Amino acid sequence: MFCGIADGTQPASIVADAGEVLAFTDVQPAHSGHLLVVPREHATNLAELPAATGRAMFALAHRLAAALGRTDLPCDGINLFLADGAAAGQEVWHVHLHVLPRITGDGLIRITAEWQIRPRPELDEVARKLRAELMA
Amino acid sequence: MFCGIADGTQPASIVADAGEVLAFTDVQPAHSGHLLVVPREHATNLAELPAATGRAMFALAHRLAAALGRTDLPCDGINLFLADGAAAGQEVWHVHLHVLPRITGDGLIRITAEWQIRPRPELDEVARKLRAELMA
Repeated sequence: MFCGIADGTQPASIVADAGEVLAFTDVQPAHSGHLLVVPREHATNLAELPAATGRAMFALAHRLAAALGRTDLPCDGINLFLADGAAAGQEVWHVHLHVLPRITGDGLIRITAEWQIRPRPELDEVARKLRAELMA
Repeated sequence: MFCGIADGTQPASIVADAGEVLAFTDVQPAHSGHLLVVPREHATNLAELPAATGRAMFALAHRLAAALGRTDLPCDGINLFLADGAAAGQEVWHVHLHVLPRITGDGLIRITAEWQIRPRPELDEVARKLRAELMA
C-alpha cells in the first residue's frame, strides 16, 4: 500500500517528498494533521530499514512536528510513534513513523503498566545484556 | 533529571553512550528492557532539539531495537515512542525517545480514535497547509 503511494500509483495527500523518505496524511487520522513518514524503498520493518533511512525518517518527522505547530490545525503536543511487529500494533507491513498531533485532554493514547521502580541490580543486568549485544 | 544522568551525577544503568546521545534503562519500565534515548545536551522538547541530534537519537534507538531482539529479554515487537508536550503525555522535561519491548497480547498501549476514512479534499487541504509551512 505505501509502495503504491511512493511510486504514485495510489492516491495520497503528499506533505513532503524528501527523496528517500516521504510523508503524507493518514487516511484514517486520529486527529486532523495525523501524518505518516515512510521510506520510499520498501522495508517491512526496522530490521529491513537502512540506518541512514531511519535517520532521514526521524529528521522529516521532526520538521513536520514543528510545521504542525505553525498551522491552524489543533495541536497542543505531538507524539512520534512507530510500531515494529504485530505485537507492537503494526498493521501495515511497510515501516512507518506516525506524527500525531495531540489535543489537551484527548485521551487518545493510554499506556497501562505497573510502573514500579525496579532495583538497580536488575536494571544493571538488563543494561549489561544490551551492551553485550551492541558490541557483538 | 536526565541531565544528571548525562553528566554522571545521577545513577543510571547505561546501555549506550554514543557521544551526543545516550541510552539507559527506564527506572520504571513498562517491561524489562524498556529503554530511553536522550540527548546529552539539554533540550526540553523537539523545538529545542538540533536536527542532527534527533537523527542520532533515532539511529541509536534503531540499533537498540535490533539488540533487544537478540537478548533473552521477552520481546515480540518494539514501539518507538516520543511525547512532545504535556498534551502528548510528556512528564520529564528533557526530550526522550522510548524504546519499548512488546509482548504479544500485553495490551500495553491503547490508541482510541474514530479512525474514519476522511474525504480526499479534506486530506489534501491538511497537506497543503503543511507544505506551505515546510517551505516557509
